[in-house]
Amino acid sequence: MEEQKKILCVGLVCLDIINVVDKYPEEDTDSRCLAQRWQRGGNASNSCTVLSLLGASCAFMGSLSAGPVADFIMADFLRCKIDVSAVVWQGKGQTPCACCVVCPSSGSRTVVLSDMNLPDITAEDFSKVDLHQFNWIHWEGRNAEEQVKMIQQVVMYNNTLPKQQRITISVEIEKTREPLYQLFPRGDVVFVSKDVARHFGFLTAEAALKGLYSRVKQGAVLICAWAEKGADALGPDGLLIHSDAFPPETVVDTLGAGDTFNAAVIYTLSNGGSLQDALTFGCRVAGRKCGFHGYDSISKKFPDE
Amino acid sequence: MEEQKKILCVGLVCLDIINVVDKYPEEDTDSRCLAQRWQRGGNASNSCTVLSLLGASCAFMGSLSAGPVADFIMADFLRCKIDVSAVVWQGKGQTPCACCVVCPSSGSRTVVLSDMNLPDITAEDFSKVDLHQFNWIHWEGRNAEEQVKMIQQVVMYNNTLPKQQRITISVEIEKTREPLYQLFPRGDVVFVSKDVARHFGFLTAEAALKGLYSRVKQGAVLICAWAEKGADALGPDGLLIHSDAFPPETVVDTLGAGDTFNAAVIYTLSNGGSLQDALTFGCRVAGRKCGFHGYDSISKKFPDE
Repeated sequence: MEEQKKILCVGLVCLDIINVVDKYPEEDTDSRCLAQRWQRGGNASNSCTVLSLLGASCAFMGSLSAGPVADFIMADFLRCKIDVSAVVWQGKGQTPCACCVVCPSSGSRTVVLSDMNLPDITAEDFSKVDLHQFNWIHWEGRNAEEQVKMIQQVVMYNNTLPKQQRITISVEIEKTREPLYQLFPRGDVVFVSKDVARHFGFLTAEAALKGLYSRVKQGAVLICAWAEKGADALGPDGLLIHSDAFPPETVVDTLGAGDTFNAAVIYTLSNGGSLQDALTFGCRVAGRKCGFHGYDSISKKFPDE
Repeated sequence: MEEQKKILCVGLVCLDIINVVDKYPEEDTDSRCLAQRWQRGGNASNSCTVLSLLGASCAFMGSLSAGPVADFIMADFLRCKIDVSAVVWQGKGQTPCACCVVCPSSGSRTVVLSDMNLPDITAEDFSKVDLHQFNWIHWEGRNAEEQVKMIQQVVMYNNTLPKQQRITISVEIEKTREPLYQLFPRGDVVFVSKDVARHFGFLTAEAALKGLYSRVKQGAVLICAWAEKGADALGPDGLLIHSDAFPPETVVDTLGAGDTFNAAVIYTLSNGGSLQDALTFGCRVAGRKCGFHGYDSISKKFPDE
């Protein structure tokens, strides 16, 4: 029997310091927060957390710079049983750290991210990874030109293998930055954000999928989540698939809800589930996640329907 | 020959995360800071840093709770050659961490300190310290009732010794909190802040010293620094002593300037310097410190005049 293959997520990891306040602080004042939490953040890093909590074997690949922030992050990866052997340690720059001020009474979240002079991982870094370990690789769109080269390496690797042993490639296009759009035709599964959809002038997920589907490669699936409206997907058969959102009774923490959705979709598809199953499960887990702080309450026993 | 005795500083240590921004962030926005620095903070902890940089042997006593913040702090104490054997590890609470937003263009500094459910050290904790190691103990006024009991332990210890072997006791009364004022009659050297002086209705350091001197014990020295106005001191001879401030060409970072002043005064007095020497040196080192970020540029070679 073959060893279990893993899901690799490539992208950012950072430290989020979350200060919960009763009122957004005025400039030049001293105040105390109600609570402070330290959380490993970054889209790809968050998706790894959720994949691991759902019971998938997964690995993270991104840059870190030695120091106290990296120490915290590495300890948390370990706690979450996420494989970090592909992490690239950079000699210059510092691991990014975001100071977040969350004010539940006004619903605001204000983020000050540190100057990220940390180099991104390159196609050369990626070439050192043993691809045999993985059945799925997900890219959070960042340094797209290098990421395209990484994806090309996987395509070449896939071409040497029978279909059922190939690595599925997914990409996330979350930010409205022109260079990221070259990732559309690169994924077998493409996640496009509501932000990007609206940037292209689309007012609904359905309109975005129909309007953007021409950008993806033949046979690919395009997925767009739209907050409380749920999520839609469009595959090569031209059928539009939809799931409603599953909001919790009380919304407590929406930070990372999108990363949770992506992870739950990837989890279902990588286990052979249908696109409808994946979409519904993505919305269920993401909705549930908004009902508590962080991710730990996403149980492995989550009812996979 | 006797081993060199140390200076002990008792008080707070925390982590200061300093975000330098070009504009104070509006609520519910995402922004990047120009720079982010992690710094060990807390008055007593800062004074230890400066004492060590000036070449004095010193130790810190205060509470910590195991975790990434404490790891950072302990590594920095070690780097600064500050003795941490008297640190009290608390089983509950978290080490405080302050997110600071510093905006040089407007001159503002906004601080959000984490909820400090970390217990303060007690007189019982203090009773376990071997007092023979020290020739000076400085208290940052915090949990004053317990601190009075600690000081009583030192007074009793001193009573068993000839005068020249006794421990000098200094206290800092920085915050305008009524319970702290019971520390006035407890120190051989008492630092009172401009804030406290103004709270009592005094408009100058001279007025504050004359007005508050009746609160200190017989033979004690009362010292009050007044930012760009320099600092004044009043001793048992009734002579008012003054030093002007020594501002740097460009003010870069005033965080911890008061802690620097205290350390430089203690350094001079503990080496047998006069009160005038101590005051002048305090103003010189504190002024110089405002010309750079952090403390590291306070050289051991500082011209001690």
